[in-house]
Amino acid sequence: MIYLTRRAEFSASHYYHSAELSPEENRRIFGKCNNPHGHGHNYVLEVTVEGEIDRRSGMVVDLKHLKEVLQREVTDVLDHRFLNEEVAAFRESIPTTENIAIEIWRMLVPKVDFGRLYRVRLYETPDLFVDYYGPQEQAASTQT
Amino acid sequence: MIYLTRRAEFSASHYYHSAELSPEENRRIFGKCNNPHGHGHNYVLEVTVEGEIDRRSGMVVDLKHLKEVLQREVTDVLDHRFLNEEVAAFRESIPTTENIAIEIWRMLVPKVDFGRLYRVRLYETPDLFVDYYGPQEQAASTQT
Amino acid sequence: MIYLTRRAEFSASHYYHSAELSPEENRRIFGKCNNPHGHGHNYVLEVTVEGEIDRRSGMVVDLKHLKEVLQREVTDVLDHRFLNEEVAAFRESIPTTENIAIEIWRMLVPKVDFGRLYRVRLYETPDLFVDYYGPQEQAASTQT
Amino acid sequence: MIYLTRRAEFSASHYYHSAELSPEENRRIFGKCNNPHGHGHNYVLEVTVEGEIDRRSGMVVDLKHLKEVLQREVTDVLDHRFLNEEVAAFRESIPTTENIAIEIWRMLVPKVDFGRLYRVRLYETPDLFVDYYGPQEQAASTQT
Amino acid sequence: MIYLTRRAEFSASHYYHSAELSPEENRRIFGKCNNPHGHGHNYVLEVTVEGEIDRRSGMVVDLKHLKEVLQREVTDVLDHRFLNEEVAAFRESIPTTENIAIEIWRMLVPKVDFGRLYRVRLYETPDLFVDYYGPQEQAASTQT
Amino acid sequence: MIYLTRRAEFSASHYYHSAELSPEENRRIFGKCNNPHGHGHNYVLEVTVEGEIDRRSGMVVDLKHLKEVLQREVTDVLDHRFLNEEVAAFRESIPTTENIAIEIWRMLVPKVDFGRLYRVRLYETPDLFVDYYGPQEQAASTQT
Repeated sequence: MIYLTRRAEFSASHYYHSAELSPEENRRIFGKCNNPHGHGHNYVLEVTVEGEIDRRSGMVVDLKHLKEVLQREVTDVLDHRFLNEEVAAFRESIPTTENIAIEIWRMLVPKVDFGRLYRVRLYETPDLFVDYYGPQEQAASTQT
Repeated sequence: MIYLTRRAEFSASHYYHSAELSPEENRRIFGKCNNPHGHGHNYVLEVTVEGEIDRRSGMVVDLKHLKEVLQREVTDVLDHRFLNEEVAAFRESIPTTENIAIEIWRMLVPKVDFGRLYRVRLYETPDLFVDYYGPQEQAASTQT
Repeated sequence: MIYLTRRAEFSASHYYHSAELSPEENRRIFGKCNNPHGHGHNYVLEVTVEGEIDRRSGMVVDLKHLKEVLQREVTDVLDHRFLNEEVAAFRESIPTTENIAIEIWRMLVPKVDFGRLYRVRLYETPDLFVDYYGPQEQAASTQT
Repeated sequence: MIYLTRRAEFSASHYYHSAELSPEENRRIFGKCNNPHGHGHNYVLEVTVEGEIDRRSGMVVDLKHLKEVLQREVTDVLDHRFLNEEVAAFRESIPTTENIAIEIWRMLVPKVDFGRLYRVRLYETPDLFVDYYGPQEQAASTQT
Repeated sequence: MIYLTRRAEFSASHYYHSAELSPEENRRIFGKCNNPHGHGHNYVLEVTVEGEIDRRSGMVVDLKHLKEVLQREVTDVLDHRFLNEEVAAFRESIPTTENIAIEIWRMLVPKVDFGRLYRVRLYETPDLFVDYYGPQEQAASTQT
Repeated sequence: MIYLTRRAEFSASHYYHSAELSPEENRRIFGKCNNPHGHGHNYVLEVTVEGEIDRRSGMVVDLKHLKEVLQREVTDVLDHRFLNEEVAAFRESIPTTENIAIEIWRMLVPKVDFGRLYRVRLYETPDLFVDYYGPQEQAASTQT
């Protein structure tokens, strides 16, 4: 088993607001991230695929295919978007780094027909990132 | 003469649209940056001050003071903002990297009472940045 | 489960010397790090917290709270210090990257009342870092 | 248990070609990497060793020794080489990032007489890297 | 006047050898870079264009156009190439970082019909780079 | 003319104190940097040399020679040192980033027998650096 990670980038804007919280709670918890005009980030995404090396190609995964999947399924959808308004998943959930990482997992997992999707890492800034290994049962059997 | 540079960061969103261009021209020139919902970046700002070393402190500029000026005059104003809607300067001009850099110069120059403001460098992403040395006559006499 | 990591920085000085080793052994093992005047580093700390996403906030942990805890419990204590002389823990143990990482774990674990402290990563330089997952029994049950 | 990682770098060239594939398949799968003249990279290697802290030295591993082993066993062998032609292991297997990482594991494992070799991470570019934890049985018992 | 810089990357291999030097001199001066099999790098290129801001677009240069020019004129030509054998300019001159930077200037200058080409910076590794401002007379009148 | 820059690193500790200032002024101006135990940094040095390309070697400067000069004249002297106590130049002047950069210029200029020393850039942290182009008269004639 070997783990291959590919990095991609997208720029998007978002804001944090929960309909279940009062305006005061929204301001207290989310601070300046609660500004409904939105603000933005250069997100950096690292997607890790786990697999065995194909003897003929010497690779876990066809890199061109992986790059195309990442672009078509993720960055073309999220890049240059106001996540709260323009991406359906975030009409229901707040586009926090955590929720975006989980959404990216969901976007990718049905399309990964090479190896197995192992981890989604998402940097909001160089100083803040999250790691998601999939739903509990799956993660338990595969985490490293 | 010595040049001291301090880096700061802010996250903001923006979009590109010119009232002087037709919708078609806006789309052609600005592409996905023309999306009026906005998208965002982690901007990285480098401000360079030129001066002589104060013999007693061994410094060109009081670093705490410089940090405070950058925060109060620039990052507190731009951070977590939708630049087109929330920053007055960008009601008139498009918040391109070029125009934001020039606006930051204008914000800082009256407040730099230590040394001389030499350069504003602004990164929109790690792969794209602009340098501004001030209005022509000033730049001509000080550029290095 | 999701893992959120926040980065922080501090600058400190240290030197390596063991009272259990002869002067010759100290010099041989520690080389120029044995210089008792000390030398310094810009340490980079990455603290990872594991938890479930709070449905209302969309977050594993209140980021403002995490930032305050890191600053109060760790960086305010270690920043701009000569670790051997000014931080009590290092009167007994040598402030190697390994021991500083473990000490940071001890400083943080009683204060992490959100999620669970999962990992402390400490970079001494960009080319050298250590990872600590807590005392053995705890690490065994939680490592990813 | 604590994990110490040291980074090293080497520059090498390679190309991708499989004798088991037709010329058309080689071109289709490997694209411009199939160019037999070779092309090159600044590889970045991160080697992680797992161990307990030696009470007297405060360290998992003698850093000077680790640095020497990395240089003698890995970077002196691979640096400034055309991997396909000049490194015996790659006469049989294609020098993909995956295979180079595994080869580095094999080069290092008999020489690591301190702690236990835990992981080899190899970056081909900042946007593409692989992680190898050793042959299956060993990895299963040690992964974190 | 404002200066806009765009970064691009390419991977190539090369070796250093001068027909005017004896084999001994080649080995002494170029060391392991003299290996005729070649070795490689991930080159990072930063191209700076100087100009005035177009009032309607708020930009010095059409970024899409600049990106296309860099790709068509430079990275498509140099990426995944063995420079000594596959790029005509380096049949006559040694593909040192200095000479590659000058060659990139030559490739770009007739194609820059926006602003004025101001500087080519080329990193061979993160620790080594060159800056070229064009032929002397031109550089003298434009350098900053 | 072309400009070649080489990067080097050293770790050192220092503190800020002026004998010409009262204890109160020292504390006010230098803050926690006034702590006499010292604190430390991983300094990053970039040295730029300006010259013409040697036709036979294709280089401005013999890179091995430049590397040796930087190591012998600068990093061997400053690395793993408490600058205030162990480097003679800083008995008289405060080891601020500004003064260290100037001192490195003085260390290097008599040894640069290749090209011309153009600039010393010194990073104290990734967020703070200074540039020094030499004494005024020299800088005036050579700056770019």
